[in-house]
Amino acid sequence: MSEQENTAWLDEIKWNADGLVPAVAQDSQSGKILALAWMNRDSLLQTIKLKRAVYWSRSKQRLWQKGETSGHTQEIQDIYLDCDKDAIILSVIQTGGVACHTGRQSCFFHHFENGKWVISAPVLINPDEMYKK
Amino acid sequence: MSEQENTAWLDEIKWNADGLVPAVAQDSQSGKILALAWMNRDSLLQTIKLKRAVYWSRSKQRLWQKGETSGHTQEIQDIYLDCDKDAIILSVIQTGGVACHTGRQSCFFHHFENGKWVISAPVLINPDEMYKK
Repeated sequence: MSEQENTAWLDEIKWNADGLVPAVAQDSQSGKILALAWMNRDSLLQTIKLKRAVYWSRSKQRLWQKGETSGHTQEIQDIYLDCDKDAIILSVIQTGGVACHTGRQSCFFHHFENGKWVISAPVLINPDEMYKK
Repeated sequence: MSEQENTAWLDEIKWNADGLVPAVAQDSQSGKILALAWMNRDSLLQTIKLKRAVYWSRSKQRLWQKGETSGHTQEIQDIYLDCDKDAIILSVIQTGGVACHTGRQSCFFHHFENGKWVISAPVLINPDEMYKK
């Protein structure tokens, strides 16, 4: 889908002052929440075109196809927008079973326990292995 | 837990320029994502104290206990923080089975289909009934 086509559905989204919305990546089979990242118009257009998650990297200030280095792409199954149209769910198949740059299944691995954040999930792939070319 | 106690775990969180982080409420049993809302320090402290979700309402600029009017509270089962410590998951039991102010189970009821957002979930409770006192 190109910008030439009808993008009324993009205009419906309430982008924030930086032109972004939060996007929650969820495993389409297990329901596990994998990550929360950010999207701008271009990243959502690319996501739909490629059927793979493309985010906006706030740190690098550029489009970032999830898995572009590691190979751990997120294959889009479904996309949902919330009631006030300022947050997105990407229902995905996570290639390699690892969404986090630390080598864990999910980025949400700090569990609150008695006033502390405790690491609650194992490293499945050594990050050094994941990012070497 | 009061502010007098050790709040190093709160200081670890990377609050944004407005002092907020996004919080994803997820049904602890089904894995269904119910809503994305925002928290500040006080709302997270209150959430832990009450074992019920308390958010920061950006529109009303005040603390907002989920369900304070409708009775549809979110009872906290677990809390997770992500790898870069700027997003939270609340794993909850959703009282009444309805998280959305529209009377739907989840706020994420707009499904992307062929260049349109299509409503993909039924209204379970009439909002007029939900908010009458």
